[in-house]
Amino acid sequence: MSTDSTEKEPKPASSQFGDQIPWKKRKAELKEKQKQWKKAKLIKQLEKQKLREAAERVKQEESSSKKGRAYTVSVALPGSVLDNAQSPELRTYLAGQIARACVVFNIDEIVVFDEQGEDVKSVEGEFKGVGKKGHACIQLARILQYIECPQYLRKWFFPMHKDLQYAGLLNPLDSPHHMRIDEESEYREGRVLNKPPKQGKGSLVNCGMRKDVRIDKQLQPDLRVTVKLNKTQNQENRLYKGVVVAPHVPRTEGGLYWGYTVRLASCLSSVFTESPYKEGYDLTVGTSERGSSVDQVTLSPFKHLLVVFGGLQGLEASLDADQNLDATDPSVLFDLYLNTCPGQGSRTIRTEEAILISMAALRQKITAAFSDVSSSS
Amino acid sequence: MSTDSTEKEPKPASSQFGDQIPWKKRKAELKEKQKQWKKAKLIKQLEKQKLREAAERVKQEESSSKKGRAYTVSVALPGSVLDNAQSPELRTYLAGQIARACVVFNIDEIVVFDEQGEDVKSVEGEFKGVGKKGHACIQLARILQYIECPQYLRKWFFPMHKDLQYAGLLNPLDSPHHMRIDEESEYREGRVLNKPPKQGKGSLVNCGMRKDVRIDKQLQPDLRVTVKLNKTQNQENRLYKGVVVAPHVPRTEGGLYWGYTVRLASCLSSVFTESPYKEGYDLTVGTSERGSSVDQVTLSPFKHLLVVFGGLQGLEASLDADQNLDATDPSVLFDLYLNTCPGQGSRTIRTEEAILISMAALRQKITAAFSDVSSSS
Ligand SMILES: C[S@@+](CC[C@H](N)C(=O)[O-])C[C@H]1O[C@@H](n2cnc3c(N)ncnc32)[C@H](O)[C@@H]1O
Ligand SMILES: C[S@@+](CC[C@H](N)C(=O)[O-])C[C@H]1O[C@@H](n2cnc3c(N)ncnc32)[C@H](O)[C@@H]1O
Repeated sequence: MSTDSTEKEPKPASSQFGDQIPWKKRKAELKEKQKQWKKAKLIKQLEKQKLREAAERVKQEESSSKKGRAYTVSVALPGSVLDNAQSPELRTYLAGQIARACVVFNIDEIVVFDEQGEDVKSVEGEFKGVGKKGHACIQLARILQYIECPQYLRKWFFPMHKDLQYAGLLNPLDSPHHMRIDEESEYREGRVLNKPPKQGKGSLVNCGMRKDVRIDKQLQPDLRVTVKLNKTQNQENRLYKGVVVAPHVPRTEGGLYWGYTVRLASCLSSVFTESPYKEGYDLTVGTSERGSSVDQVTLSPFKHLLVVFGGLQGLEASLDADQNLDATDPSVLFDLYLNTCPGQGSRTIRTEEAILISMAALRQKITAAFSDVSSSS
Repeated sequence: MSTDSTEKEPKPASSQFGDQIPWKKRKAELKEKQKQWKKAKLIKQLEKQKLREAAERVKQEESSSKKGRAYTVSVALPGSVLDNAQSPELRTYLAGQIARACVVFNIDEIVVFDEQGEDVKSVEGEFKGVGKKGHACIQLARILQYIECPQYLRKWFFPMHKDLQYAGLLNPLDSPHHMRIDEESEYREGRVLNKPPKQGKGSLVNCGMRKDVRIDKQLQPDLRVTVKLNKTQNQENRLYKGVVVAPHVPRTEGGLYWGYTVRLASCLSSVFTESPYKEGYDLTVGTSERGSSVDQVTLSPFKHLLVVFGGLQGLEASLDADQNLDATDPSVLFDLYLNTCPGQGSRTIRTEEAILISMAALRQKITAAFSDVSSSS
């Protein structure tokens, strides 16, 4: 009689009965063996699972470091472009065109600068200016912020405002961070709720899902936060669980496009000097039909790219109005001064068109800069 | 005394005086030499000038044959794109965006096709359809034609029409054939006037200048014609002089972008089969986010390129509606089926945006195809 077969087959073999082994003892022996076998199996399973988990982690880390995008791209343009629109409706529509152009090309920051050199203070969150003509910078910035905000958070962060009167005409951005209620996603934008969290527990956040999310920290109500949802959720719970992450995490770790921030600059020079990136922009591109042809350009990898557009009168006009800048030729301000549409069939390309055209031309160059390993060394 | 030195130096050399040659005779001789010398110089000058002129001509012919563009680029899109607009004003504005996108990229033909497969007859000149919703193809075609027409001819060719009610909102095309009254140009668009021309003389044409133009032919009044103005004009004359040329001449000989023609197609297949070019299109490109990446593509020189865009539902929908086409996968219809914006940050790119983005990506490829000598052999 082999124990092997017993281990594999806990039921007593009929041949065993002939050996006259006392039934009770035999049963106890078998039970013990079975217990040990189960334990061994469990250990093996646990080990396998651990291995699997570890492998998964490595794989995820690998793919997320591959997936993540480390660099940023900023676009700057003068708010005055709105003044070319013929009606408040078209003014709104134009702002929407600019937002969409930037989203299509994964722009991380939009800088709205004042061409007239009027002093506009850099503003966070709620803007103050109103009006139909003029105040173009603030109006453009407000509409850009509004449309960037996921729909389910808009009523909180953008209470009814005259500048947003025609917001119904805006084409949706359809960016990855604009999620529908039942859409699954690793990350979500949310608003910290005004429900006092219990002792030792994190705040509740509305992430536009059917349940609120309990985060890991206690935060000020009404803050806009980026939440990373836990991989596994207990469906029975009244709440989802997640942790607050920096807004760049969906991009740097998830490789997702996560919308843009909006910055106001009081003049052209502030676009450069007030960069939110500690090291500033390490590659700056000016755009003009008088620039050199984009076709002859290759880009090297960068950390923070800034692409600057002019208004009706071009970047020359923005430069003229800026008292901090001595130059008269805008090309000296930039690392590259590019004509992104050589041979254009219209005497003039509008700024909203130039964003799509220029970023389409630069997209290929950016892709090449980061995919060509030899150029990054 | 050498004639050589005389020829080179008409003034008598001082050494000659010592030879005691009678002064009068000497003077006459010198005069004669001088005369001959002048004559020779003149002949040389004339010859030089002739040579210079001939060289100039060769150079001009060379550069104009270099200047000229032999190939054409057509864009096709469904008229249904207008139905996405939220108001008649925005409908008009959208049509204008499409016109401008095409002009910026020197598009020679815009084909508006019917996605719904409703039977729309191909229409030349005046269109019949009206209405705010629906009739999108005819409406789009009409607005495209209207805005392509030089301002000074519009009141003749586009009498007031409901579809053009909001034409005031359209951004101007600013293309080379939209000339201001005093602008000088080798070519101009004009309208044959209804003044009976004198026996043996050509018709009078209004080319939007301060004087009418007498052309070389007698043509039907109200015809739209392309006029090549004579190089030298007698400013005293009551009229300018010019000859009628084919509409492609400013492009093929002058290397100028000269606007687009508009064609209606009753379904997707008619876009291909009703080409105005005898040989049809020799390079066809379909566009879709499901196409292969434009970055990996190189184009060979072509004669007639056609780039086709889909509407809200993409080219799949256009294909489904077309009873003449069996395929369900649009990629089989085209030589190339391209994603012109890999890595797009919005889930969906609108057709009017896709035209700018796609043509910006293709412009570089087209330039490369025609500038790279090795690829044309
Ligand atoms: C209406 S245009 C400015 C035209 C102005 N008259 C000029 O000469 O610069 C507005 C902006 O679009 C951009 N733009 C227009 N054409 C461009 C081209 N061919 N290449 C790059 N950028 C262009 C520039 O940023 C320009 O400042
Ligand atoms: C609103 S999109 C169509 C989207 C539709 N759901 C689809 O899946 O095709 C309208 C048109 O824009 C063009 N388009 C959009 N994204 C594109 C891309 N990434 N590359 C090339 N063309 C694109 C195509 O011609 C498309 O038919």
